[in-house]
Amino acid sequence: MIIVMRHDATSDQVKAVVTQVEAHGMRTHLSDGDERTVIGVIGTNPFALRDLFVEAPGVAEVVPITKPFKLSNREFRARDTRIPIGDHVVGAEDVWIVAGPCSVDGEAIFLETCRQVKAAGAHALRGGVFKPRTSPYSFQGLRGDGIAILGEARRQTGLPLVCEVLAPADIDTLAGLADVLQIGARNMQNFALLSEVGRLRKPVLLKRGMSATIEEWLLSAEYILSQGNYEVILCERGIRTFETYTRNTLDLNAVPLVKELSHLPVIVDPSHGTGRRSLVTAMALAGVAAGAHGLMVEVHAQPELALSDGAQSITPEAFRQLVEQVESVAAALGRGARVPA
Amino acid sequence: MIIVMRHDATSDQVKAVVTQVEAHGMRTHLSDGDERTVIGVIGTNPFALRDLFVEAPGVAEVVPITKPFKLSNREFRARDTRIPIGDHVVGAEDVWIVAGPCSVDGEAIFLETCRQVKAAGAHALRGGVFKPRTSPYSFQGLRGDGIAILGEARRQTGLPLVCEVLAPADIDTLAGLADVLQIGARNMQNFALLSEVGRLRKPVLLKRGMSATIEEWLLSAEYILSQGNYEVILCERGIRTFETYTRNTLDLNAVPLVKELSHLPVIVDPSHGTGRRSLVTAMALAGVAAGAHGLMVEVHAQPELALSDGAQSITPEAFRQLVEQVESVAAALGRGARVPA
Amino acid sequence: MIIVMRHDATSDQVKAVVTQVEAHGMRTHLSDGDERTVIGVIGTNPFALRDLFVEAPGVAEVVPITKPFKLSNREFRARDTRIPIGDHVVGAEDVWIVAGPCSVDGEAIFLETCRQVKAAGAHALRGGVFKPRTSPYSFQGLRGDGIAILGEARRQTGLPLVCEVLAPADIDTLAGLADVLQIGARNMQNFALLSEVGRLRKPVLLKRGMSATIEEWLLSAEYILSQGNYEVILCERGIRTFETYTRNTLDLNAVPLVKELSHLPVIVDPSHGTGRRSLVTAMALAGVAAGAHGLMVEVHAQPELALSDGAQSITPEAFRQLVEQVESVAAALGRGARVPA
Amino acid sequence: MIIVMRHDATSDQVKAVVTQVEAHGMRTHLSDGDERTVIGVIGTNPFALRDLFVEAPGVAEVVPITKPFKLSNREFRARDTRIPIGDHVVGAEDVWIVAGPCSVDGEAIFLETCRQVKAAGAHALRGGVFKPRTSPYSFQGLRGDGIAILGEARRQTGLPLVCEVLAPADIDTLAGLADVLQIGARNMQNFALLSEVGRLRKPVLLKRGMSATIEEWLLSAEYILSQGNYEVILCERGIRTFETYTRNTLDLNAVPLVKELSHLPVIVDPSHGTGRRSLVTAMALAGVAAGAHGLMVEVHAQPELALSDGAQSITPEAFRQLVEQVESVAAALGRGARVPA
Repeated sequence: MIIVMRHDATSDQVKAVVTQVEAHGMRTHLSDGDERTVIGVIGTNPFALRDLFVEAPGVAEVVPITKPFKLSNREFRARDTRIPIGDHVVGAEDVWIVAGPCSVDGEAIFLETCRQVKAAGAHALRGGVFKPRTSPYSFQGLRGDGIAILGEARRQTGLPLVCEVLAPADIDTLAGLADVLQIGARNMQNFALLSEVGRLRKPVLLKRGMSATIEEWLLSAEYILSQGNYEVILCERGIRTFETYTRNTLDLNAVPLVKELSHLPVIVDPSHGTGRRSLVTAMALAGVAAGAHGLMVEVHAQPELALSDGAQSITPEAFRQLVEQVESVAAALGRGARVPA
Repeated sequence: MIIVMRHDATSDQVKAVVTQVEAHGMRTHLSDGDERTVIGVIGTNPFALRDLFVEAPGVAEVVPITKPFKLSNREFRARDTRIPIGDHVVGAEDVWIVAGPCSVDGEAIFLETCRQVKAAGAHALRGGVFKPRTSPYSFQGLRGDGIAILGEARRQTGLPLVCEVLAPADIDTLAGLADVLQIGARNMQNFALLSEVGRLRKPVLLKRGMSATIEEWLLSAEYILSQGNYEVILCERGIRTFETYTRNTLDLNAVPLVKELSHLPVIVDPSHGTGRRSLVTAMALAGVAAGAHGLMVEVHAQPELALSDGAQSITPEAFRQLVEQVESVAAALGRGARVPA
Repeated sequence: MIIVMRHDATSDQVKAVVTQVEAHGMRTHLSDGDERTVIGVIGTNPFALRDLFVEAPGVAEVVPITKPFKLSNREFRARDTRIPIGDHVVGAEDVWIVAGPCSVDGEAIFLETCRQVKAAGAHALRGGVFKPRTSPYSFQGLRGDGIAILGEARRQTGLPLVCEVLAPADIDTLAGLADVLQIGARNMQNFALLSEVGRLRKPVLLKRGMSATIEEWLLSAEYILSQGNYEVILCERGIRTFETYTRNTLDLNAVPLVKELSHLPVIVDPSHGTGRRSLVTAMALAGVAAGAHGLMVEVHAQPELALSDGAQSITPEAFRQLVEQVESVAAALGRGARVPA
Repeated sequence: MIIVMRHDATSDQVKAVVTQVEAHGMRTHLSDGDERTVIGVIGTNPFALRDLFVEAPGVAEVVPITKPFKLSNREFRARDTRIPIGDHVVGAEDVWIVAGPCSVDGEAIFLETCRQVKAAGAHALRGGVFKPRTSPYSFQGLRGDGIAILGEARRQTGLPLVCEVLAPADIDTLAGLADVLQIGARNMQNFALLSEVGRLRKPVLLKRGMSATIEEWLLSAEYILSQGNYEVILCERGIRTFETYTRNTLDLNAVPLVKELSHLPVIVDPSHGTGRRSLVTAMALAGVAAGAHGLMVEVHAQPELALSDGAQSITPEAFRQLVEQVESVAAALGRGARVPA
């Protein structure tokens, strides 16, 4: 951390800052420029002290010089994290494909969709029974009633399940069933929930908050990692921008950027990421070309009947074509998409 | 809700949409323009069906024409909600002033600050024992240890307490002590927590999420109201913008806009709202001039020692002057600030 | 356009609106819902009247139902616009690749870079002599001195030139030399400049403004088209988001969305779009996979000496590899990248 | 400027950076932390060199430590800039009030509005003859025909005129007539136009761009100041946010922040700043309470007939009441609003 003094700071103000820094067990290093004095702060976690100095007398600015995330930081662990889920290893070269309806909204149609996405090449199923909805008047998920249906889908297809948890209480309900617990965008900074899933030993799929920076997202991952659960998969799902023709804006820059900054795997969700069925395939292909370790795609056997997010669900047939094109693009870049048969 | 058909929609596509709308128990009303057909949908809560139609064949757009919030909507309840807290009525003409440190970080200094803010004219105390922090390596609040200190502050000053809850489990801990439960910005869409405080009969202060629209904020209030708890105070605390010289951007437009759209009281927090001590007083005055029902201000007897958010805390003396200026501005606009002695 | 009346609008208020609409030569169509009256407005360009009604007595909202862009709208012209530039047709299947330094900052190095990007497969050269810079103290471009160098580059390589214009006066200077005139992001709503290039008969590359919506971007294109110049190429170059690790956020959703809404060709600039050299190749590949008609890439033979935007320039060798990978991805999707030899 | 080296930078990489810095005539100052080396760069305008280093081998980050604006920076000129316009001094204690229609759209109604705003207490008139409109199909201003009307308004009221210029060519047309030239939000980074008005000796009112940071705004002011024209008035007119119920979000934080960072006067425009008539008065009062040096308000004798921006225009009677309330709030804070009679 660097403390930049004001142009007109007195030498007493400089001394006061130095004294206070050292009182917190850190060392200082002064540098006098033509215009002002700059104080380097050396020690462990100086970031935590930022607030103490930012408006102290004579201080112009406090500038962090190390990134505040540690366990997820590639600078301190160069090797990619790889997470086995079912027959697939997430974070390796092959593209991991998760698919299924946004929510479980009827047994027959849900099971039918799951069978079809498996046939088309999906490696895992998605399907929520607790749904976070902006309005209390929208469909909130089947809750308890959906659990049995999810279990049946898992049994019939043999595919692992990714399920969202909304509250610590859901973890107990879902932990026995789901292979991966998903934290949704609106809960990315629900720190109580993050700590709770950090205490499990089960992969967590952490969606990016709608207006979160990459740093905040990695700090949320850090809440999970710092509790001892290292199996975190990041999922970019669209950020909020000024665009009104789409629900969200899938931020693919996040893919190569996360891979540069962190060793954790990162996948993309072009369905929530755009909110428009007609954009899903193009953005799925772009995600793979950008280097994503996987895709999460909403598929519904009858999108026009979906009780949530029908506008962004594609049909099983469209999904089958998407998988084929993903395979072509992945192959062109020297990567695979399918689990070896 | 209005369903706008595409310019080239066939009459079969129009019929299919009408049939499906009516299958959901709603009525339709067709209007043929020069360029396209528009279908009005009449019935209860058509909003919930939006997703069914938005990408149906031949549909160009689905446009809501009623606001999705109901219980908080001034169109359906013209009279202002007024909420008695201690000796003050929040939502009436007088300005409600809540003040205190961001978090409880030491007994002596906390009690000293509370005594001073009371002397300066505060109507209620703020002080968190659970702190939501972006980084797991930052100070997380005194938790259990802070509870006794909060109780002592309440006893010594006689002022009501506003405390933040981060998780359903905190409610049990704090419900006996706090007079108002605060939901922080990062939890504005933690729907499990909103439903839980909705089941209490105790005022809730709901902070606006950092990138939330007014509609989303009112829909979050709706989660609380729809559980039967009508005592919700909205608190504008700064939105995220591209500005880098401030931590947040206090959005004062929200004040007259919320008052136009809703009957719920709305206050502003110029401390988090700017993140810079030097801007707090100007923005507090502006908030009152914009019509806010109250203010929430961070005060710390020794801001330079605060373990969180010291950069935005003002001293008790600065707070005393702020209260005086608030009184002048409120009086100039025909409002009061002080509880009558 | 639809005018939604308030829940409590009187029948006189409804009549007043209808009368005023008809006074402007439009027809109306009333629809009475359970809760409110909705007035459909039928006629040419009702959009221009929006402001007259939006706060009229009894009006709740005015909702446009046709998109305000006309000449660029795919609804009214289904066929893709194709623009021949040199030996290439922009807007057809093949990927158009424009490359070169951000600005002309030295003759030898500029010509060297141009020769190398041609050898690597570029179809056109970029190189600015007028640079829009946020600070008046940054390098502003070589201006007049750069013109001769540009001409020499064109002569030596035989490749067409893309040059930015900042003001109407630049058009006279550059029109004889440049094959494509570029309007930069900061000038996307410089309507005087747009009208001026609309009067030329020369292709215009229109960059998207940093916070512009797709609709605003297409309306800016409309300023050019409505003057009779139909050869407009749209270029996505990154939007402003809250991310601080990158300079901009390349919005690839814009690619399939523009292709759905408009018949104009759309290319992407991953160099400005990210501002970081290390992300350029991944985002170029993603852009092609998303369906972009072309790429604009900053290349500099010695990026560490570039007087502007060196941080986002790649070396000729990195560009050569990028072109190869673009060819693989394009081929995997059934498209070509190279001009046939 | 500080260059932060990577954790794993080699000593050769450090040396290379130092050598290159010194080759540009600057001095360096090394500081070795526990984790990395930090290089201070000392000299004139190091900011211009930022791009050279930001992706150099071994470099993690380049951090500016001085603000890039100079002539507008309060650190280098503590005293407030005061600009006499008519009988008023902008930048002093009294609130400067500019009012009038958004555009000149008819002689009788324009003159009537001007007479009424003068009677209500306005110090200057606004009225555009060239209007920047997002769509080429919207009303573009009366252009030449409006000039004579503006001149007549000035003659009849004796009040100074504020007029917008869209292009260098407008300056010649308006310079003889207008007392203040306005640069609109969309032209805030039209650097050719900024330089042009910088060469005049006439006050310039510079509106903030819709997504501009304060630093970018001050750098745009710097383009004018650096040409020798020191009479720049900044005008906050609303930024773009995610809110959809308002057209823009007036950012009042900008007021105390600009006053802290710069000596230039700053006013606010609550009309464009919100886009809704019903919010104008509340935000005008808030602007004054926040410390703004003035207000720019849209007034129209018949807002329902305004050809642009009618939704945000208030009536002369509402304006009269606004001025009275502004006077009360200003007086409560020890400031005046009226020119002494």
